[in-house]
Amino acid sequence: MIQTPYLLFLGDAPDALAAKVAQGIRDWRPENCVGQYRMEGCKADLKLPDMTLAEAKAAGAKTLVIGVANRGGVISKAWKKVLVEALEEGFDLASGLHNLLHDEPDLVAVAQATGRSLHDVRVPEVDYPVADGVKRSGKRVLAVGTDCSVGKMYTALALDKAMREKGMKSTFHATGQTGILITGDGVPLDAVIADFMAGSIEWLTPPNDADHWGIIEGQGSLFHVSFSGVTLALIHGGQPDALILCHEPTRTHMRGLPGYALPSLEDLRDLSLQMARVANPDCRVVGVSINTQHMSEAEAANYCAEVEARLGLPTVDPFRHGAARLAEALGAY
Amino acid sequence: MIQTPYLLFLGDAPDALAAKVAQGIRDWRPENCVGQYRMEGCKADLKLPDMTLAEAKAAGAKTLVIGVANRGGVISKAWKKVLVEALEEGFDLASGLHNLLHDEPDLVAVAQATGRSLHDVRVPEVDYPVADGVKRSGKRVLAVGTDCSVGKMYTALALDKAMREKGMKSTFHATGQTGILITGDGVPLDAVIADFMAGSIEWLTPPNDADHWGIIEGQGSLFHVSFSGVTLALIHGGQPDALILCHEPTRTHMRGLPGYALPSLEDLRDLSLQMARVANPDCRVVGVSINTQHMSEAEAANYCAEVEARLGLPTVDPFRHGAARLAEALGAY
Repeated sequence: MIQTPYLLFLGDAPDALAAKVAQGIRDWRPENCVGQYRMEGCKADLKLPDMTLAEAKAAGAKTLVIGVANRGGVISKAWKKVLVEALEEGFDLASGLHNLLHDEPDLVAVAQATGRSLHDVRVPEVDYPVADGVKRSGKRVLAVGTDCSVGKMYTALALDKAMREKGMKSTFHATGQTGILITGDGVPLDAVIADFMAGSIEWLTPPNDADHWGIIEGQGSLFHVSFSGVTLALIHGGQPDALILCHEPTRTHMRGLPGYALPSLEDLRDLSLQMARVANPDCRVVGVSINTQHMSEAEAANYCAEVEARLGLPTVDPFRHGAARLAEALGAY
Repeated sequence: MIQTPYLLFLGDAPDALAAKVAQGIRDWRPENCVGQYRMEGCKADLKLPDMTLAEAKAAGAKTLVIGVANRGGVISKAWKKVLVEALEEGFDLASGLHNLLHDEPDLVAVAQATGRSLHDVRVPEVDYPVADGVKRSGKRVLAVGTDCSVGKMYTALALDKAMREKGMKSTFHATGQTGILITGDGVPLDAVIADFMAGSIEWLTPPNDADHWGIIEGQGSLFHVSFSGVTLALIHGGQPDALILCHEPTRTHMRGLPGYALPSLEDLRDLSLQMARVANPDCRVVGVSINTQHMSEAEAANYCAEVEARLGLPTVDPFRHGAARLAEALGAY
């Protein structure tokens, strides 16, 4: 569990895209963001107050979050200077970089000396159990996709926001690096040992109130041969009561797999339901989320309307249309 | 890759069952077994020549394999003495124990000093790639089960033996600890990091001759919520051309999961085929393997005949009837 609120470290980001993790935190959990820390030459700007470490500390920030990609696969000396200083000022550090903070002897030494924590969110911090398959109280919804990277995290976060706005009880459960940094907690599922994947998701989504919805961030796709096992562990560990189908209509083949065609939404619906009902016979599909970023406004509207008619399910692009209709579908569950 | 042949270490096994890993090696790869090493009080006997370390070394043994379970979760002093001596005599050590050889500082130090290898087959020794889904030459067959522990490894090893006896080209690909110790090579799939599961199976089953069959050891079950993700990674990484359905008819619920009923063989057939065809559209089911250990001879014969008629597939218990008919089904593929 990462202590909030955060000071977001943008470093010397060469452009806004390099700071997209920080942008995600700022978009979805603005209440977790005290300010931003930018070094000379930084081209990203989250429109948060620029703060020194001391200013952010005084404003209550507890963790410096590296919200920017690093270049060349190394943590530069210029970054290191700031990170060491942050530990000395009393900040924990959190990072989703491939280079682990724990692999930097100087950071480890200073963290030990100052009693601060280093969070590498790519690496599990918990010994997860083997899944026991026992039914938990409360409800859970999972976004499943025809492919990887079709907008499952965005859908889940937008749904969480829409449900809160309606006064519904919900919790977003992160299963990837960015989601974990956004919420400060979660399971880095792609880094979990095979035998404990489903158990890690049971651990992540414990029993809750009968009217509480756990919104589980999806990963991979049952149809993506590189990562399908991760997806199935999510379905069986999460025991979802509801599924939301996610799709990006302009994709010509599965991500990273030339020669592999995308399944239809109907195929996704049928296979996902069949798998989910092994763990939860009451599971049903409640809506469809379409990523229309490569379509015009009119194309997007037509496409969603066509899918809605075809599948008989509320169909939206949460980015364009919000996720209120998906939240309503869960409210009516 | 573990160097063969082996000297099998039976330690002070309290009974034959404690040495079942050694028994498996002896049953399936007798050509890998130079002899057995038994300590005082050992109650197991593989009917191999009893040898001292020096005798086994002289007979060509390269690795001392711990083929026995340890008691109390520790490697005893009495065992340790033998293991250290073996390293000094020039043996590598191989173990599937939960206690890792690599966690014993004295063994690590002696192995380094003597230039010998410690193989903990529960831990991957390779950095596996992410699966790329590219079609490989050669053919592959995978055993899939209605549940865990229904005889998938036994079926695969029996099939490998039957195919060799018929002069067919085959390789047994181990995906679990016992299988790895039996063959000296393989992937400990349950210990692989989630993102690399399917890639590890691609790595394990590389391109081969068009008439070569890779026989992939199955793990878990698509219907077992604790381990289904591992099974799906096997199906998508292995790209099987053929599936063999495995079942144990007397089981009343999924192993370790009270309240979870077993699927029918028809459910297993349909779901496994649908999943397998994502990676290999030509995949088909070629036979059924029934574990009839809890049935009488007559019950077993009747049950297999009934399944054979119902599914229209050759159906055998490889332990009772051998796997020749399954090998024939692959020969006719």
